[in-house]
Amino acid sequence: MKSLYHVLGAKQFDREELEQLFSSAKAMEVVAGEGGTQRFPNKIMSTLFFEASTRTRFSFESAMHRLGGRVIGTENASQFSSAIKGETLEDMIRIISGYSDLIVMRHTDIGAAKRAAAVSTVPVINAGDGSGEHPTQALLDLYTIEKEFGGIDGAHIAMIGDLTYGRTVHSLSYLLANYRNVHISFISPDNVRIPTYVKQYLDEKSVSYEETTDLAGIAKTADVFYQTRIQKERFPSPEEYAKAEGKYIIDRNLLDAMKDKAMILHPLPRAGEIHPDVDQDPRAAYFRQAVNGLYIRMALIEKCFT
Amino acid sequence: MKSLYHVLGAKQFDREELEQLFSSAKAMEVVAGEGGTQRFPNKIMSTLFFEASTRTRFSFESAMHRLGGRVIGTENASQFSSAIKGETLEDMIRIISGYSDLIVMRHTDIGAAKRAAAVSTVPVINAGDGSGEHPTQALLDLYTIEKEFGGIDGAHIAMIGDLTYGRTVHSLSYLLANYRNVHISFISPDNVRIPTYVKQYLDEKSVSYEETTDLAGIAKTADVFYQTRIQKERFPSPEEYAKAEGKYIIDRNLLDAMKDKAMILHPLPRAGEIHPDVDQDPRAAYFRQAVNGLYIRMALIEKCFT
Amino acid sequence: MKSLYHVLGAKQFDREELEQLFSSAKAMEVVAGEGGTQRFPNKIMSTLFFEASTRTRFSFESAMHRLGGRVIGTENASQFSSAIKGETLEDMIRIISGYSDLIVMRHTDIGAAKRAAAVSTVPVINAGDGSGEHPTQALLDLYTIEKEFGGIDGAHIAMIGDLTYGRTVHSLSYLLANYRNVHISFISPDNVRIPTYVKQYLDEKSVSYEETTDLAGIAKTADVFYQTRIQKERFPSPEEYAKAEGKYIIDRNLLDAMKDKAMILHPLPRAGEIHPDVDQDPRAAYFRQAVNGLYIRMALIEKCFT
Repeated sequence: MKSLYHVLGAKQFDREELEQLFSSAKAMEVVAGEGGTQRFPNKIMSTLFFEASTRTRFSFESAMHRLGGRVIGTENASQFSSAIKGETLEDMIRIISGYSDLIVMRHTDIGAAKRAAAVSTVPVINAGDGSGEHPTQALLDLYTIEKEFGGIDGAHIAMIGDLTYGRTVHSLSYLLANYRNVHISFISPDNVRIPTYVKQYLDEKSVSYEETTDLAGIAKTADVFYQTRIQKERFPSPEEYAKAEGKYIIDRNLLDAMKDKAMILHPLPRAGEIHPDVDQDPRAAYFRQAVNGLYIRMALIEKCFT
Repeated sequence: MKSLYHVLGAKQFDREELEQLFSSAKAMEVVAGEGGTQRFPNKIMSTLFFEASTRTRFSFESAMHRLGGRVIGTENASQFSSAIKGETLEDMIRIISGYSDLIVMRHTDIGAAKRAAAVSTVPVINAGDGSGEHPTQALLDLYTIEKEFGGIDGAHIAMIGDLTYGRTVHSLSYLLANYRNVHISFISPDNVRIPTYVKQYLDEKSVSYEETTDLAGIAKTADVFYQTRIQKERFPSPEEYAKAEGKYIIDRNLLDAMKDKAMILHPLPRAGEIHPDVDQDPRAAYFRQAVNGLYIRMALIEKCFT
Repeated sequence: MKSLYHVLGAKQFDREELEQLFSSAKAMEVVAGEGGTQRFPNKIMSTLFFEASTRTRFSFESAMHRLGGRVIGTENASQFSSAIKGETLEDMIRIISGYSDLIVMRHTDIGAAKRAAAVSTVPVINAGDGSGEHPTQALLDLYTIEKEFGGIDGAHIAMIGDLTYGRTVHSLSYLLANYRNVHISFISPDNVRIPTYVKQYLDEKSVSYEETTDLAGIAKTADVFYQTRIQKERFPSPEEYAKAEGKYIIDRNLLDAMKDKAMILHPLPRAGEIHPDVDQDPRAAYFRQAVNGLYIRMALIEKCFT
């Protein structure tokens, strides 16, 4: 039996696979630009969102439709599903994988996607597992850098904000370890610093990085400003949240200090951490980045089916 | 670049456009009667309902499917989506419009659809914005009158119930201003009268109207009885609701006083304001009216795509 | 006018119809195995779930997609829909049946599906009505027995757990009355025994059955162990629930006492009433049973459309 292709975490990707994926995503831009294809009329994708996320879910569902497929889904499984009846995730996945050809899952628990893949009879894509990983977001982030800069080697990337609970930051760090001469600046309040296990991984892969609380200090040198939201719902207490919130804002002043060829990314949604004044600047790449999610997810779904 | 066709409010329609739309809706009745068409296999419609409405959402989604299209949706975006994470409506629409070819939106705030259209890269259809407007409902209301009476000029229309918060009444009033010799009777409890800005619009357009609390008084003369639900959720206090509720009920007695060729409409759902006794009478047009929503929405969706 | 085919309760099925249905389900296994068919591209199924059930809904929606059809749905109509605005179920069905070709409904009230069918202009399938019936579940249960044993006549079936509120047990009992020399053992705590009306039906049909609290006593003789979850949400009080919960568990010990050719079924989800140790045993048929739901529902949907 052919083994299943799952997308569970960023560490599973090596440079060759990333380059193939980006090449496939570029082809998908053309397909989507023509309105889509009817390539997978018989395929059914389940979107199992135990934690609601309209944008991420829409992005996956749109990708499936642009490939001609079908979607069955739940927008808040934790509230509605048999989960509340005491069923294990494993049982649920055993059943749902009998009803679909692909499962896209967001869950509140770290490792949930891996547990799902262990029992599923169809491919599983991790669309976020608690404060664990969000690999498809990191892939689209990286694709945006690759596409707009023409390459990733040698880039200086600043990751800003909540680096403890911000799972996209973890996944993106792992992906960056595949490239040469990358330097990462982790900029965060003291109570939401980048976790030790991420730093250990970067050490193992000999990736250059630094931790700082000084955003202005790297404004002139960074190529990519990866801003994140301080996610209230991930903090243990309101006090911890208050310490972290509102500390780093990208505004016109910061923009004026940046290189002409810098790029501002954000996994979105944003609250107030990027001022709307910045939106019209060509360096504000976050809305282009969101559309890239469609192409990356089309490429990943295709890979699951072939 | 070709400008986008949005459906935001009833005032945007002139008589010529209404007549074209009704002609298109008549053609859609034939299409739907044959089970639908596969005309738009690559088009994706997003249904963004920040306020739940199963009927309205199903009507739009059915219309899209009857045209061969695809749907991605959320049945209660306000509860589940990134809205709770502090994202602006504008940001959300910028992203969703990258994932779909049409956005159908219901929102709790007046003017939300207009704000969405200002940033969307795809057409936006307003499926209700707070106590503002509900133009597609008003279009199907008008289409029902046109279809069953063979015309709208000269009609005497009674609008009954909650005329302050009942947005369909506002939208229908604006549409009626396109016709000749129309007379409107606004019949409501004192605390939910028709707003001044609606009356000002009718004055500008020289539409004849009156305000009264006496339903029985117009029973013999009105051609159309447009009954509405007293919507508890739109009242500022239980006291205000209690004053308005249960005051005007269409029952067998009132029916006996009506003209043989009268017509009873209701945007539905109804609570108790039309007695079920009335349902079997041929003048009870509200269920036929609901099906007309399918044809009108098919016609509007087609217009957005062509 | 051709009369509509509804699936409302198990009593509507006679042996001939069951055999035709199972033969059709077998054909659907082949269709599904090939990824599906594009047979009903113009048909729209509404899934109206007033009570959430991700598995049952996904099973129906997957079945519809495998037949090439389209789906519009709500995952929790009681919370979101016009139900909260005071609309009757009948009004809602009158409208929804104008937007779709088939309605699949789960509701909290006994008899809701029958009420829906009485006003619907399209077929209605009961996907569970309170503690009433769940006929499609019982059909897939029976299909599993038929498929794995090659027949149902002469079988000894033990039904275990909550026999008062467990609607699938009621529906399955009615279906079994169509077969010869069947014997049913009803095994439950005293406060959730099989209802008198189910026993009366079995008496009328001369079906052999017994009631007992002793699961171990029938371990060696039963062919089918139909285990059910003690559903907390159906109990009038926490005290009544506490009395019933955790009393009958199928584990390795019980398995060791069973016949080599026994079969363990469960409508799922399970909480703790089947130990995971049992999952790998070939007699554990509950996950195969769940997939059979897809084929039975494909067969039923096809029957509604032909």
